Amino acid sequence: MAAPGAEVSVGRTSTPEAPEVSPQMDWSAFGEKFTRHSGIAMLMEDLEEGVKSGALMMGGGNPAQIPEVKAELEGIFAQVQRSEGGAFSPLVEAVSNYDGPRGKAAFVEALARYFNAEFGWSVTTENVALTNGSQGSFFYLFNLLCGAPRPGSGGARKKVLLPVCPEYLGYADVGVSDDLFVTARPRIEVSEEDRSFKYRLDLQAARALLQDAGGSRGVGLICVSRPTNPTGNVLTDAEVQDLTALAKEHGVPLLIDGAYGLPFPRIQFAEDVSMPRWSEGSGLILCFSLSKLGLPGARTGVVIAPRPLAKAIVNLNGVLSLAPGSVGPTLALPLLREEGRMERLCEEKIRPWYKERALYAKSVLMEALAGERRVLCHRPEGCIFLWVWCRGLPVDSREMYRRLKARGVLVIPGHFFFPGLAGAEEWAHTGECLRVSYAGIQDRDRLALGLRTIASAVLEAYAEVPPGASQGLRAGKRALPSEAESATIDGVEAEPKALRCAIGA
Amino acid sequence: MAAPGAEVSVGRTSTPEAPEVSPQMDWSAFGEKFTRHSGIAMLMEDLEEGVKSGALMMGGGNPAQIPEVKAELEGIFAQVQRSEGGAFSPLVEAVSNYDGPRGKAAFVEALARYFNAEFGWSVTTENVALTNGSQGSFFYLFNLLCGAPRPGSGGARKKVLLPVCPEYLGYADVGVSDDLFVTARPRIEVSEEDRSFKYRLDLQAARALLQDAGGSRGVGLICVSRPTNPTGNVLTDAEVQDLTALAKEHGVPLLIDGAYGLPFPRIQFAEDVSMPRWSEGSGLILCFSLSKLGLPGARTGVVIAPRPLAKAIVNLNGVLSLAPGSVGPTLALPLLREEGRMERLCEEKIRPWYKERALYAKSVLMEALAGERRVLCHRPEGCIFLWVWCRGLPVDSREMYRRLKARGVLVIPGHFFFPGLAGAEEWAHTGECLRVSYAGIQDRDRLALGLRTIASAVLEAYAEVPPGASQGLRAGKRALPSEAESATIDGVEAEPKALRCAIGA
Repeated sequence: MAAPGAEVSVGRTSTPEAPEVSPQMDWSAFGEKFTRHSGIAMLMEDLEEGVKSGALMMGGGNPAQIPEVKAELEGIFAQVQRSEGGAFSPLVEAVSNYDGPRGKAAFVEALARYFNAEFGWSVTTENVALTNGSQGSFFYLFNLLCGAPRPGSGGARKKVLLPVCPEYLGYADVGVSDDLFVTARPRIEVSEEDRSFKYRLDLQAARALLQDAGGSRGVGLICVSRPTNPTGNVLTDAEVQDLTALAKEHGVPLLIDGAYGLPFPRIQFAEDVSMPRWSEGSGLILCFSLSKLGLPGARTGVVIAPRPLAKAIVNLNGVLSLAPGSVGPTLALPLLREEGRMERLCEEKIRPWYKERALYAKSVLMEALAGERRVLCHRPEGCIFLWVWCRGLPVDSREMYRRLKARGVLVIPGHFFFPGLAGAEEWAHTGECLRVSYAGIQDRDRLALGLRTIASAVLEAYAEVPPGASQGLRAGKRALPSEAESATIDGVEAEPKALRCAIGA
Repeated sequence: MAAPGAEVSVGRTSTPEAPEVSPQMDWSAFGEKFTRHSGIAMLMEDLEEGVKSGALMMGGGNPAQIPEVKAELEGIFAQVQRSEGGAFSPLVEAVSNYDGPRGKAAFVEALARYFNAEFGWSVTTENVALTNGSQGSFFYLFNLLCGAPRPGSGGARKKVLLPVCPEYLGYADVGVSDDLFVTARPRIEVSEEDRSFKYRLDLQAARALLQDAGGSRGVGLICVSRPTNPTGNVLTDAEVQDLTALAKEHGVPLLIDGAYGLPFPRIQFAEDVSMPRWSEGSGLILCFSLSKLGLPGARTGVVIAPRPLAKAIVNLNGVLSLAPGSVGPTLALPLLREEGRMERLCEEKIRPWYKERALYAKSVLMEALAGERRVLCHRPEGCIFLWVWCRGLPVDSREMYRRLKARGVLVIPGHFFFPGLAGAEEWAHTGECLRVSYAGIQDRDRLALGLRTIASAVLEAYAEVPPGASQGLRAGKRALPSEAESATIDGVEAEPKALRCAIGA
């Protein structure tokens, strides 16, 4: 064989040339769609740049680096690298072989057994499909069930109904076709006394959107994250029952994205929340992930779905990536197989850590904003974020994002989290919120520094236009209700009595 | 929190019910496209089922389980799990964190340095994008550049031109839109004396297809695998130069899929084959993979492309999977960083193993078919397959696949490997070939058993209709040329003198 590079060896010593001009790309429709600068791409780039620049990372969705969790991972690595009788270890075997397109068979079986034992379901391996992360699951599911109708079906273009917003920005861009969402505006319950609020499903609004779209003719999927990214909201059992009934009534599947929730990683602090009952005919699709369990780099998502839908995902895995990665399943297998190990990891190491951090972060932020009662924090019932609502802020969240970035603090501006909401631009609320991760900074003092930087930027922004002045102020005419008063402002119900912040403070 | 499953505990002890009927799925156009039973899905399912049933696995594309390679992986695992000063190891850090959407930054940098040092290129990190495997790279690239035109562009629907076939069946189904390929029929050089043949680029045919499609108006990408999956062909430097010139002339990018080739894993036995010179303006897109290096379970693909295209892949990674997996890059990093380690692995452990196996497999198969001169084997110049052409076989490859499966031997029928070829059904050749992996069975005797089973099935099939008889025989009227004779049959050039089988035998 000719020595590689023999024909180009001159290039190694030649003087540097001006960089070549890039060719002009003639994108397809798909190319045009996916080369737009998406919210999710910005989030992931910020993550990367932020790490390099040493910024205070409160933007990304990276899970916390909890020493006890990483120590458990170390233990698992040791375990799956034990080999017997001269054979190679399970981990070496895992990377050395393709799994099937459904994902590692032993893990798929363990998942089915785990869900059945945990919840009394009747999941079979045919109901399970692994993916390279939940983001991929959403890409598959949204596009399988929504978008352009199949030729000759006589059907209409279908949308994903988001019955509550704000909702995960990662949903926004996965559609192969544009304009994939129809989104209901939630009710907002404000508790002035503990300076918090909570989004509530507006069932009537969701139902109206579904009916206006022609039911299952215009809506192919209803989707919620629970706990909700970005707000930390957890839909109540009653709300989920309402959605399940609505979905069943119209013959539309309901996807519940449990990336942060039950049964793993259980970053969920709300009480009295249970899993809905899944069955083949339940109309439910459940998405899970190993990422927030501490394995984001392994890229492993789990879908529980009716057999034909799971099979479709298997097909897509084959066509798009041959098979999902095998390392995540290999690492998580002992957690499922060993009685109680997953529960101990979640209940003893993961949930308490996030719960304590959520309380701490909220208290630091709200203390730094003690004199500014217009700022509210969503009740942190789960997830890894504070969702901060700066009522009547004269500067919108995009500008706040830029200002904070300039100060070395990365957050995600809230306007990204209202995909498909009609009239989002006119609803001041969509520009008044910030998503602040409390999981990205391990050091408590640095976390506090980040939170106080946010607080001071917010205070400065409020100071730009005095409260009550009308020029340039979005919601300047609003009178702020007194602390204990129950009032309705701007379509927002304030019901302080009804609220008990799930994690106190 | 309510005890999980409390509300459904009855289900655990109830008598088993009849399985629920699956809901009817109302697929979108995307759903309809990707729920068809694809060749690639069949391949991956066979892999999985075959492993379970103990079949002789000669169908899938799993790399060989070479003990020396797996021992090297064991060593790398040990290396990336060393931790210093109480910190967690690089491997634990890798699984605990998302990479950026371009892929692990340290690996991207190491790749750029490696290619520049190896070939004298000027790759920057902006030219590199990782994916969850080359299959994903193809999905991205084909759909970014081909398919429906972007709205308002006034452009036409574009296709991928495959200038040579047979070509990788994994390309066939990745199009979001149907009918994505236009494919040129190759010339075939037959060497009766060593019972082999080789496909040659028919540049005129490829040029004609490109021109008929309106040049860059109708073709968005030209694509070849080199070495070619399934045939083991390696396009010569002259052929690649011809293709590069053709692509440049029409302003269409040329993708060279090097999953099996240079510079890693170098499963390439042909002499005098070098890498073309990549640069920003070269019009080349290069795809690489860690799979055949021994890491298929890690799912890591590498794309070297002009900056805007690499950026588009980064965007797609973000939208479709947040980020590529981090384990493959972590494991491969030492191979690139440590001077000469990648080369030693490929040259000393990978290439010699496959080359020896290729020779062995070919000799066993052809010996078992010693009396049947109609069977030819493609010159095994690379890859991990024998491509067996049974001229005038009265049974087509689909039926051969079924018969062999019934005997416990899995191969891939050849008809899958002609995507987009006009008149494929009428060209007998497309139904006369089998792809036989010699990498899936480690034990030489079992490999030989599989090859002899194939040989005896082929002999039996030939025996069903005596040679020369015309009833039901596809190419029964063909006279077989004598061994040394140079002849042209059925559009096939037989040029025994011109051929030296690259690996002898």
